[in-house]
Amino acid sequence: MRSPETIERAARPAPSACGAVALCCRVRLARNLRGERFPDWSDEEGRRRVFDRVAKAVADGGGMRQPEVLKVEDLDALTLQQLNERRLISGDLMDRGAGAGLVTDFDGRLSVMINEEDHLRIQTIQPGMDLWGAWAEADALDTRLEESLDYAFSSKLGYLTACPSNVGTGLRASVMVHLLGLRLTEDLDAVLRALDRLRLMVRGVGGEGSDAAGHMFQISNQGTLGQTENDVIAGLLRQVNAVVDQERFARLRLLRDNPSLIEDCVARALALLQNARMAQADESLDYLSALRLGVEVRMLRHLDIERIERLMLSVQPGHMQLLMGAESEPEQRDIYRADWLREQLADVSFKP
Amino acid sequence: MRSPETIERAARPAPSACGAVALCCRVRLARNLRGERFPDWSDEEGRRRVFDRVAKAVADGGGMRQPEVLKVEDLDALTLQQLNERRLISGDLMDRGAGAGLVTDFDGRLSVMINEEDHLRIQTIQPGMDLWGAWAEADALDTRLEESLDYAFSSKLGYLTACPSNVGTGLRASVMVHLLGLRLTEDLDAVLRALDRLRLMVRGVGGEGSDAAGHMFQISNQGTLGQTENDVIAGLLRQVNAVVDQERFARLRLLRDNPSLIEDCVARALALLQNARMAQADESLDYLSALRLGVEVRMLRHLDIERIERLMLSVQPGHMQLLMGAESEPEQRDIYRADWLREQLADVSFKP
Repeated sequence: MRSPETIERAARPAPSACGAVALCCRVRLARNLRGERFPDWSDEEGRRRVFDRVAKAVADGGGMRQPEVLKVEDLDALTLQQLNERRLISGDLMDRGAGAGLVTDFDGRLSVMINEEDHLRIQTIQPGMDLWGAWAEADALDTRLEESLDYAFSSKLGYLTACPSNVGTGLRASVMVHLLGLRLTEDLDAVLRALDRLRLMVRGVGGEGSDAAGHMFQISNQGTLGQTENDVIAGLLRQVNAVVDQERFARLRLLRDNPSLIEDCVARALALLQNARMAQADESLDYLSALRLGVEVRMLRHLDIERIERLMLSVQPGHMQLLMGAESEPEQRDIYRADWLREQLADVSFKP
Repeated sequence: MRSPETIERAARPAPSACGAVALCCRVRLARNLRGERFPDWSDEEGRRRVFDRVAKAVADGGGMRQPEVLKVEDLDALTLQQLNERRLISGDLMDRGAGAGLVTDFDGRLSVMINEEDHLRIQTIQPGMDLWGAWAEADALDTRLEESLDYAFSSKLGYLTACPSNVGTGLRASVMVHLLGLRLTEDLDAVLRALDRLRLMVRGVGGEGSDAAGHMFQISNQGTLGQTENDVIAGLLRQVNAVVDQERFARLRLLRDNPSLIEDCVARALALLQNARMAQADESLDYLSALRLGVEVRMLRHLDIERIERLMLSVQPGHMQLLMGAESEPEQRDIYRADWLREQLADVSFKP
């Protein structure tokens, strides 16, 4: 049994307690050039012309630190997969050819996809849930680009986009949350249903509903027409804060009323990561997600969140093949991944 | 990777290699007393009369070592559950009242259930697959009892029983086999279907089909009319031997072609048993079953089959409560079981 002080300590909101549930947040703005057809209605020549204009504007005038211009047609499948695993490009962009590409700064915090569904998808990713900060960065880049690019804009509708759902602000904001506590208390499905009723979009990472890999969910606004950017972000933050509170409350209840359940979850995850001889990516994410909870409730020695986040990126198929130094079959990769995880986590121990 | 010699050593049939797949075997004979109604058609007085006659005959003239006479009505639920977990009494017998009971020798190898579906169910259980030995013991007890009991017997049909399926020899023979290798090679379902087509009965322990707890299956004959005891036992042994060979071949193929799969299975099972904080009975049986395979293919240090069999009995709910010293709720029991298993297996280690 955990002593009351331990529970108190684990449950007290630390400075990082918000980040503990909200993993990262993202803002993206959909923009298009006036006088150019949307990518799906354009031809190769048109898309290449748009790519060149946008890439130049972003690289030269975007104010990015060490901007890198990448064309999809120049990249091999493995590199594209890695960019996708880092959430810098969408699955949709990976499948596009001439004219599709990406400009990103040195650490992927600020980036622009070119010729995905729209001519530009400006994106910022930040740790935690500082959506206002993410929005400010995206907005600043957008403003800088507007100096050299002429956006398709209607004074009545706002920014024009390929899909009607983005017309208006072109803004989608999202927060990635880690809801393992709610899963363990069996409240997760009810929370997901409530979010759905609030017209928020909830997507699991690599899975649907409560089976999402790593129990990580991206919560985002749906629709942008008739709302200001401030409305969208303030509304989303309000709802995400409510979810974060529910998750924290679930963890507190577990520690107080059913510590064995949470200990079992963390101890098993560590045991499997330290002993499995084959490990698939999604399964590894699940166990790493349990370790994250374990770190947050002070049940693990010699492990911190930063290391878990690095491991979560590395276990994904593209990054794993990068570590292996070659493309590989899934089964080989599972063996390699298990060996690698055992090595990476050898020094971690469980302290109930 | 395992070296060829290791594979050779693991695959070579050791003296115990047969027992490695066939865990134990059982013979039971259904018998009834002439002039008494079958238990379900009788009344309390009749059942008590039968109980007294049979119990006396078995205890005095059965030649059992240290016979013990047990009446269902005198036993508490926990004791009944433990007898059931040791396979000495059926679930059916547990639910019966006055007149139902058991006579067993000191180690449960030889026993007689009284007033289950029939007046007598003579039973022998032996390790391995020495069905002839088990049959000889049951037959000898049956012969001794016939000196003092007058069995219901028809010269045309054979022994008369409450259920027509047992009329004739009243014999059911079964062998319990451990088929985890076939499960890992994904051949288990095909093998179970083939047994079904051969009109053998296959029952998982605590589950159906390939989800049976611990991957243990009891294979037995169906029907007894028109066959001699020798036919039944010889036929069953032939089929069980074929299954045992398939399981051994599956293990050999795994060690040769896919050692990581079998190592992963064994390493995970050990990791979970050594680290879980809550463990249900069926799940524990599954992991212990994987340890059994691990011992048999020489992947575990400081563990033998005898200890695994003791653990397999102890993790079951009735026996676990005996260890706890009190009746308990399932959740408490899961915590206790996990603690107990961690302690029991602390010295075992994996050597791939």
